[in-house]
Amino acid sequence: MEKIRMGVIGLGNRGRALTNCVILPARDVDITAVCDVYDDRVDAAAAEIKDKKGKEPFRTCSAGELLARTDVDAVLISCAWEDHIPLAVEAMKAGKAVALEVGGAYSIEDCFELVRTCEETRTPFMFMENCCFDRYELLATAMARHGLFGRVVHCEGAYSHDLREEVGYGDINRHYRLRNYINRNLENYPTHDLGPIAKLLGINRGNRMTGLVCGSTGSFGLHEYVCEKPELTYLKEVKFAQGDIFHTIITCENGETVLLRLDTTLPRFYTRNFTVRGTKGLYEMNTNSVFFDYMDGEKYWEPIDTYREIIDNAREYEEKYLPEMWKKVTPEQLKAGHGGMDWFEFDAFFTALREGGEMPVDVYDAAAWMAISCLSEQSIKNNGSYVEIPDFTRGKYKTRPLKDVTAL
Amino acid sequence: MEKIRMGVIGLGNRGRALTNCVILPARDVDITAVCDVYDDRVDAAAAEIKDKKGKEPFRTCSAGELLARTDVDAVLISCAWEDHIPLAVEAMKAGKAVALEVGGAYSIEDCFELVRTCEETRTPFMFMENCCFDRYELLATAMARHGLFGRVVHCEGAYSHDLREEVGYGDINRHYRLRNYINRNLENYPTHDLGPIAKLLGINRGNRMTGLVCGSTGSFGLHEYVCEKPELTYLKEVKFAQGDIFHTIITCENGETVLLRLDTTLPRFYTRNFTVRGTKGLYEMNTNSVFFDYMDGEKYWEPIDTYREIIDNAREYEEKYLPEMWKKVTPEQLKAGHGGMDWFEFDAFFTALREGGEMPVDVYDAAAWMAISCLSEQSIKNNGSYVEIPDFTRGKYKTRPLKDVTAL
Repeated sequence: MEKIRMGVIGLGNRGRALTNCVILPARDVDITAVCDVYDDRVDAAAAEIKDKKGKEPFRTCSAGELLARTDVDAVLISCAWEDHIPLAVEAMKAGKAVALEVGGAYSIEDCFELVRTCEETRTPFMFMENCCFDRYELLATAMARHGLFGRVVHCEGAYSHDLREEVGYGDINRHYRLRNYINRNLENYPTHDLGPIAKLLGINRGNRMTGLVCGSTGSFGLHEYVCEKPELTYLKEVKFAQGDIFHTIITCENGETVLLRLDTTLPRFYTRNFTVRGTKGLYEMNTNSVFFDYMDGEKYWEPIDTYREIIDNAREYEEKYLPEMWKKVTPEQLKAGHGGMDWFEFDAFFTALREGGEMPVDVYDAAAWMAISCLSEQSIKNNGSYVEIPDFTRGKYKTRPLKDVTAL
Repeated sequence: MEKIRMGVIGLGNRGRALTNCVILPARDVDITAVCDVYDDRVDAAAAEIKDKKGKEPFRTCSAGELLARTDVDAVLISCAWEDHIPLAVEAMKAGKAVALEVGGAYSIEDCFELVRTCEETRTPFMFMENCCFDRYELLATAMARHGLFGRVVHCEGAYSHDLREEVGYGDINRHYRLRNYINRNLENYPTHDLGPIAKLLGINRGNRMTGLVCGSTGSFGLHEYVCEKPELTYLKEVKFAQGDIFHTIITCENGETVLLRLDTTLPRFYTRNFTVRGTKGLYEMNTNSVFFDYMDGEKYWEPIDTYREIIDNAREYEEKYLPEMWKKVTPEQLKAGHGGMDWFEFDAFFTALREGGEMPVDVYDAAAWMAISCLSEQSIKNNGSYVEIPDFTRGKYKTRPLKDVTAL
């Protein structure tokens, strides 16, 4: 495969940003076809590609038409969440390698179908969870791999991102989040936090998630938000199903727990709060801290600022444990999207595709991580009852070796 | 009541510290009787009281004997957790006002008996949750009462305190935690975090906790700890029942959730992580932050240290919202225990007792908060299943007015 010929399905914010900043600048990659349900988006993307590369891609509003083309080797699926799995399945059946953008699943059967299709077609498939490639998640994972935290016992993370504007203006900006927030109540976006945690804990590789419970607040933030925007008062009578904050506690076969927080409709600064707790130490993104057994944890009656200074030393460890790709990150890579991680994840996809190697985030990861969404929905419907998480590897997790997304 | 004559039952670390630093220095309070199951503790406490006050208190190893005395108006119960409720009940039946130290309950029936006894005997009763009186919890609660956070939607807190030494050396220092960590697996200490949250959310006063789910890690930290201490190797074969980290999600009738973390057997710096989330802003102890709707939450691709500086301005609000008692706190009060809060809570107890006023943390609070322990145990036994939380007020919560521990 000299050049990878990509099709892009879904040209909203995410699809356009990846097209412009990551795929077009990538070496030996062409975009030969673009697709969106809205034709103005198709036209704009095609024009931009022509402008930058000199050659106009095939344009269509039908994903089926794009997938039927012989000049497409691989597709990025970055459309609305609802179509992620159906289109990934269709693409694999059409023999196209798949880069699937993140989101949650709508049913467990969908997750099984994704796995079955990938196993049957043996089509290269990668789940594009960019946070698996981010600086701090990889630093902490490297430190864990080097044993600095001892036996890892608990991890947590959050998708704390105020999306009230994106959701509230969903009709105007044609964003699928709005209909999801009106109709469903669940951990709808689990993978930015769960992805790197699952990699660290060896989920599907020696370990697996066995079950979860999920608790949700009522829905207050969005309603207040739309009531305060004159152009959104038409949504005043809408009863949003989606609560403001969700906590999901996942139990793992090897005795760890994972805590996830979804937190998108209240004011706050962004955080993913990636946290690793072990018998010998911790990494805590929220406080930018590492802490080890030999340090003094009893500084607790001093003002918080004071005792934080003592342990606010995570930077020391970057020199020793930060993966090479992050040490050598270039200004172009940093610029490509979300501070560099988008570049690294697509580079991993293109490299594995070219070399026929194993994808660093595979279909079992996709199924297990996306399944948290529909399972959390089920838990919430029953007051937060315990729900089992299926083993999508059907026992293979017991012997599959660890695979980090880069050397650590 | 000119002088309050106190008996102290339980003279371990906590009982001795309160005796020396809070009760003995209090104005118009005498300690007339002391009790512990270990007679050397009784002797030491009695000697110290005599040394400081000139008069030796009655000494006994029998709580019943202490409670039978006519020269005791009120008792502090600061013994092992197991005896908290039975002794509080016995004390109320003997007509002694009760200051009950914190801990969790062992059964729901115990909690109901505590409430019934208090209602029947009409004995003054206060649950001594000192964190309800602490600086940052009260600052955030005052800000919430002034509406700065809008509609409060979620609160969280933690008891993150590395107790491996206390627990591991429990046989040597005669600490009840050791037997509890060997035999039970539960949120065994919920009230330092839940107490101030419950006050803020108006639990038992217009709101109530309806149910919970609880997830626990396996037990790794203590075993590793005792294996590494030569004098504790006799505990090597002990299988500790207590997991390392517990998360409990509590749902409230008015739509809020409360997240509690118990985290006592892994290395980390102390935190209670008191957090208030509302439709207009947040307070977050872990990052020492406040954040409001009008601020820019999208600083998220900058290094964490950078964007934190923008919002690390909680101190601004102290001048405006910190309760008067904290603004005027004296060096003696600060010194009295846990940075001042112990002084304030006992002052509240003595004041209410003298004036016949309502206790700021009452028997309904005690029952509801302590109940989290045995309910979490039940949840964990069933994989983290949902467990209902009883209404110990039997409907009275609907009309009981808010009562903060101080003017806010």
